[in-house]
Amino acid sequence: MANRTAAELDRHDPLAAARGRFHLPDGVIYLDGNSLGALPTAAAGDVRHAIVEEWGQGLIRSWNAAGWYELPLSLGDRLGGLLGAAPGQVAVCDTTTVNLFKAMSSALALRPERSVVVMDAADFPANLYVAEGALADTAFERRLVEPGEAPQDLLDESVAVLALSHVNYRSGAIADLGALTAAAHAVGALVAWDLCHSAGVLPLELDAWRVDFAVGCTYKFLNGGPGAPGWIYAAHRHLEAGARQPLSGWMGHAAPFAFDRGYRPDPGIRRFLCGTPHILSMRAVAAGLDTFAGVRLEEVRAKAVSLTTLFIERVEDGLPAGTLELVSPRDPDRRGAQVSFGFEHGYAVIQALLDRGVIGDYRDPGVMRFGFQPLYLSHADVARAADALVGCIESSVWT
Amino acid sequence: MANRTAAELDRHDPLAAARGRFHLPDGVIYLDGNSLGALPTAAAGDVRHAIVEEWGQGLIRSWNAAGWYELPLSLGDRLGGLLGAAPGQVAVCDTTTVNLFKAMSSALALRPERSVVVMDAADFPANLYVAEGALADTAFERRLVEPGEAPQDLLDESVAVLALSHVNYRSGAIADLGALTAAAHAVGALVAWDLCHSAGVLPLELDAWRVDFAVGCTYKFLNGGPGAPGWIYAAHRHLEAGARQPLSGWMGHAAPFAFDRGYRPDPGIRRFLCGTPHILSMRAVAAGLDTFAGVRLEEVRAKAVSLTTLFIERVEDGLPAGTLELVSPRDPDRRGAQVSFGFEHGYAVIQALLDRGVIGDYRDPGVMRFGFQPLYLSHADVARAADALVGCIESSVWT
Repeated sequence: MANRTAAELDRHDPLAAARGRFHLPDGVIYLDGNSLGALPTAAAGDVRHAIVEEWGQGLIRSWNAAGWYELPLSLGDRLGGLLGAAPGQVAVCDTTTVNLFKAMSSALALRPERSVVVMDAADFPANLYVAEGALADTAFERRLVEPGEAPQDLLDESVAVLALSHVNYRSGAIADLGALTAAAHAVGALVAWDLCHSAGVLPLELDAWRVDFAVGCTYKFLNGGPGAPGWIYAAHRHLEAGARQPLSGWMGHAAPFAFDRGYRPDPGIRRFLCGTPHILSMRAVAAGLDTFAGVRLEEVRAKAVSLTTLFIERVEDGLPAGTLELVSPRDPDRRGAQVSFGFEHGYAVIQALLDRGVIGDYRDPGVMRFGFQPLYLSHADVARAADALVGCIESSVWT
Repeated sequence: MANRTAAELDRHDPLAAARGRFHLPDGVIYLDGNSLGALPTAAAGDVRHAIVEEWGQGLIRSWNAAGWYELPLSLGDRLGGLLGAAPGQVAVCDTTTVNLFKAMSSALALRPERSVVVMDAADFPANLYVAEGALADTAFERRLVEPGEAPQDLLDESVAVLALSHVNYRSGAIADLGALTAAAHAVGALVAWDLCHSAGVLPLELDAWRVDFAVGCTYKFLNGGPGAPGWIYAAHRHLEAGARQPLSGWMGHAAPFAFDRGYRPDPGIRRFLCGTPHILSMRAVAAGLDTFAGVRLEEVRAKAVSLTTLFIERVEDGLPAGTLELVSPRDPDRRGAQVSFGFEHGYAVIQALLDRGVIGDYRDPGVMRFGFQPLYLSHADVARAADALVGCIESSVWT
């Protein structure tokens, strides 16, 4: 790559036009789309329409007339197109955390004779917390993959559920979702995948990989807005087998407006809904999904590899060897749309980068995280950001 | 009241100016604010600001710079002012359903030696469904108040939690929250109140009434927008005693960004948060709360009594006795900001009223529901709506 300039790479970028689908502040290079995606150009108008016309003029009638009631499922089906999920298996609702609680509880109920949930000690801690809550007062125990171990090493016939993240929030390392799912199935366990850091930037085939349950957010690489609702996937075969979740609310009932005294879950994915859906936030999610119109995820993935490779090479070329520790996998096939560098003074560097118009983020202890959304970043942006990072470190008092 | 005209009543209305705080469609009289409150004039601009400036320009920095991180608690404290709750006890988050799950689970955990949850068979069914989910796989059982019984009749020392709605969704009947809370406490039980149909239209004193837990939505009388987040109240004394809820997510952690492996609940009300808050929807909630600026809930309550009384009198005066069954309490002290009439052809009448510009709603079986938000309804509106209802019934083929 070193012998092709960033400008050359950008001239051959099939996604170059997608940049026009976003508003970004002047003078800013935004490398934090793995935390909060940038603003789609259409979002403000779409949400305004929902407020002024649907809420203001339509009022209560919009639950039917504007499709509000169907929105969790209609958005879910659209999102399913990016997940490799046939219609009827994805709902947009609640938060990732609540959805993971539902997914884990459902999976555990399908394996009542087992006793163990396998998770990764290095996973996003919220997922570990959810398991604590879901497992409290049950006979299940959590078994954690410690550094140096592989999840496969912990799988045996006591395991009910393997619950992992596809891409690690801290390192950006990609887990082998297909192989791990197959390994879990081989011992009779189910899988619950967190796809927060892969949905929208990795080609996914949840149906083909025989995933059981998956969850994620919509506010990172899906560009759905701050605190946008999460989503949940439950495979058809589990819906047909009667998988249930404990947050039984009226929106998951087979007939919410029959006002039956007893809960009767909807026959389909709707049973994974709970309370009244957050309509205004969901209109922004729709605008986020619109930014993927006509985009092939294989192109997004190829560009993410190109952007992260350029960033790593340019940063490492600019600094004395060993200045930074590459926390992300060097092998691009194992690296998500993210580059993390370990540096003792990482927090201060991220602050200094802000002053130079480059937005990344920092995760304790000592990790500078940079996310690369191929829809709105060019190779030129990434080259400038790499130079800024090198400059911050070179000019600082730490080195 | 019959000898004072609607116009006279409106001339002495201290809340008349509040109508200007809302956008309502021309030619519509909106009697469904108990399902979805009308649009505050400021909401579109406030949400647009959150999208264009906070999200678009501020990006990830807005979690701190725009107060997003604190929003569930800062909004909660503002809402607390309408609930009679001192700061630090209310969080705006998730949905009513999820919050009721948290409240019931927390309360049950505080009474582990007991076995019964008392609820009302006539309550909003979602609440019964939540209890089904929360009680599944526990030793607790649900004991339902059947028609003709009083909740007090079912209270004894086996009861862990009394979980009721303050105002019934179907009839608008007000439960005696203070007396029922005291009766529950007298047998050592805790209370979890659903205030969906009272927050914003009844003066509330959660602290003074020694309420333990309460939940509600913000999209009815609080005018927060379609599917706006819910809220939860947990009394200081229970927070201090370590009350916990099972949806342990990162936003409820004492230090979310320390990325501890183990869950350690925040010392305050933040422990009742779970996943990432829905920022855009919450900005509309703030606009909804703004519509109460300078308003005394005692004035709102007095006007609600006046509006509902006028509506009942005018409808009943216009029709042969016995045409409609008043489902709501005739005693205004026992009636919320709602009037429900039973009528065999109620569904068709509600449809016919829509054509005359009056929006109410229908709840199976046979109940026409009309909600009265004193901030945007005048007595003249209510008189016209009553006349339209009489006209629909008089001109129909059913009578």
